Amino acid sequence: MTAPDHKLTRMERGAAMTHPIAIGIDLGGTQVRAGLVDASGAVVAHAATRTDATGGPQAVIEQIHQLVREVAAVVVLERIAGVGMAAPGPLDGDAGVTLGIPTLAGFSGVPLARLLEERLDLPVRLENDGIAAAFGEWRFGAGRGLRNFVYVTVSTGVGGGIVADGRLLRGRRGMAGHVGHMTIIRDGALCACGNRGCWEAHASGTAFAREGRRRAAMVVGSILAAHGAALDGQIVFEAARKGDPLARALVAEEAQLLGIGIVNLLHLYSPELVVLGGGVSNGFDLLHAGIVAQIHAAALAPFRDVPIVRAALGGNSGLVGAAALILEEPDANSSQ
Amino acid sequence: MTAPDHKLTRMERGAAMTHPIAIGIDLGGTQVRAGLVDASGAVVAHAATRTDATGGPQAVIEQIHQLVREVAAVVVLERIAGVGMAAPGPLDGDAGVTLGIPTLAGFSGVPLARLLEERLDLPVRLENDGIAAAFGEWRFGAGRGLRNFVYVTVSTGVGGGIVADGRLLRGRRGMAGHVGHMTIIRDGALCACGNRGCWEAHASGTAFAREGRRRAAMVVGSILAAHGAALDGQIVFEAARKGDPLARALVAEEAQLLGIGIVNLLHLYSPELVVLGGGVSNGFDLLHAGIVAQIHAAALAPFRDVPIVRAALGGNSGLVGAAALILEEPDANSSQ
Repeated sequence: MTAPDHKLTRMERGAAMTHPIAIGIDLGGTQVRAGLVDASGAVVAHAATRTDATGGPQAVIEQIHQLVREVAAVVVLERIAGVGMAAPGPLDGDAGVTLGIPTLAGFSGVPLARLLEERLDLPVRLENDGIAAAFGEWRFGAGRGLRNFVYVTVSTGVGGGIVADGRLLRGRRGMAGHVGHMTIIRDGALCACGNRGCWEAHASGTAFAREGRRRAAMVVGSILAAHGAALDGQIVFEAARKGDPLARALVAEEAQLLGIGIVNLLHLYSPELVVLGGGVSNGFDLLHAGIVAQIHAAALAPFRDVPIVRAALGGNSGLVGAAALILEEPDANSSQ
Repeated sequence: MTAPDHKLTRMERGAAMTHPIAIGIDLGGTQVRAGLVDASGAVVAHAATRTDATGGPQAVIEQIHQLVREVAAVVVLERIAGVGMAAPGPLDGDAGVTLGIPTLAGFSGVPLARLLEERLDLPVRLENDGIAAAFGEWRFGAGRGLRNFVYVTVSTGVGGGIVADGRLLRGRRGMAGHVGHMTIIRDGALCACGNRGCWEAHASGTAFAREGRRRAAMVVGSILAAHGAALDGQIVFEAARKGDPLARALVAEEAQLLGIGIVNLLHLYSPELVVLGGGVSNGFDLLHAGIVAQIHAAALAPFRDVPIVRAALGGNSGLVGAAALILEEPDANSSQ
């Protein structure tokens, strides 16, 4: 990666107020994506690259800088209010510091918001990706107009974000909503976090695919067996749609596991709605009935009527939400 | 129960503002208690009676009316700002309606706040007892000055209340914080709610005592065996303090079960502090090390430093909190 030939011009706050626009970044273990997001939540420019997972924070910061330059090219810089950055937790959203990103090397205790501000010469806010995605869905997606809802993303891991009593729930250091690491099965499967029985260890897309591979190797006649080690959740969903009995059983089990965790969240946060995002939500049509059945079986009666819907912004919830946070709550952890 | 000979005089709001005082009610399955609580959180008068568990709402309302008359007798009625009522959930704290109290007959869908207002001629606010207790501990107890903490009460059941981002977490219908009904052991013990594996089913005082009785009947030589069916949690704590090996094993298991649920709450709400109340907190000194050990074993690293302390208001957290809600947030579900 070569050094950039110029720094971005510092925005003029006055100009930015008239037609505010923000850049959202979604830093993931495999991809880092940037989007230029206007006040209506529309992504007017987009760029992405494969995350340099081993290069450390400085390499990732340079990647982000390049992406920001790309998406910022379509507008005058003065209009850009700042950069909202969604990253995997746990991170300190108050201080703008990553506390360790499991899939990326060297992110323990990195003041990422400050380092990015210095590199980009723009205000930067760092937020847990689950919280940012909840904000995106709240402002422009499935949670619009609600005072209480829970967003859950189920993909490699399980994350979440909560809107409660008309506000984003952040908690100490902005670390609320790590829903994937609640124990639902004492002494259950080993989680990437080291604990056993976490919701994530049993219901994530990773766990769903692993269980599919395990069962496919044991069951004679399933169309899943042919895929071997390449079997993933999307293949299971496709097979289930074609009526494959093993795939259907796997989907039913996944729905129940999702339902167990969602029932917990109903009791804990009392949302009006649960919004499901992430890769596993591609099978939402197949999973929905099983989730609802689990809620009816296990939730206290007054919680049973809460609807479960699919995220409306798809893979952009976090990116759009992070940008929206800059436009609506710019001063949370910016030092500028 | 005889009909009362007079109705309470309606307060004068102006007079009440100068030296505000409120009545807190804690309605439980065995006792209903009333306290006159001043703005400093002091209980200046107190009265209690055994709950008429089978008489239905009208009988309980008459009991409350008698208690209110007793505690109100020590001040001029004009000073009383209203009545804050803490009751077991689930209840609709927004509408002031009980949705069913497991230990009391006839409380499904009862507009208790309105019925009490009519009977007492005072504004009444109904709040889940866990939420009310959290508010009491926040204002006058162990959570004073914090922006984020979780209150957990462990007695007959397991309940809770949450302060997040400097506010009481209420959620839809004021039903947030039903922490006892999160599943921690899939297909675990049957809970009073009908579900299996709830935290309450495994870690409540009821479950602790039941497990003590079960194990005492199986183990030769424990001093617990002599108690038979009368064995309860307090006896186990006493025996553990005397060094009884079975009692110590039971306490260690209880601490781990409490720890599993508390770890979940750390990830879900990100508190600065966890406050433990209820009868089981009488063994706090014995349980603390085991809870902390579970947190260190199972929580993500950034959550491991959160302290666990005992409730400061003891059995009065809910009563004081309910009264404090009247003094500080009088208009939540009052129709007056």
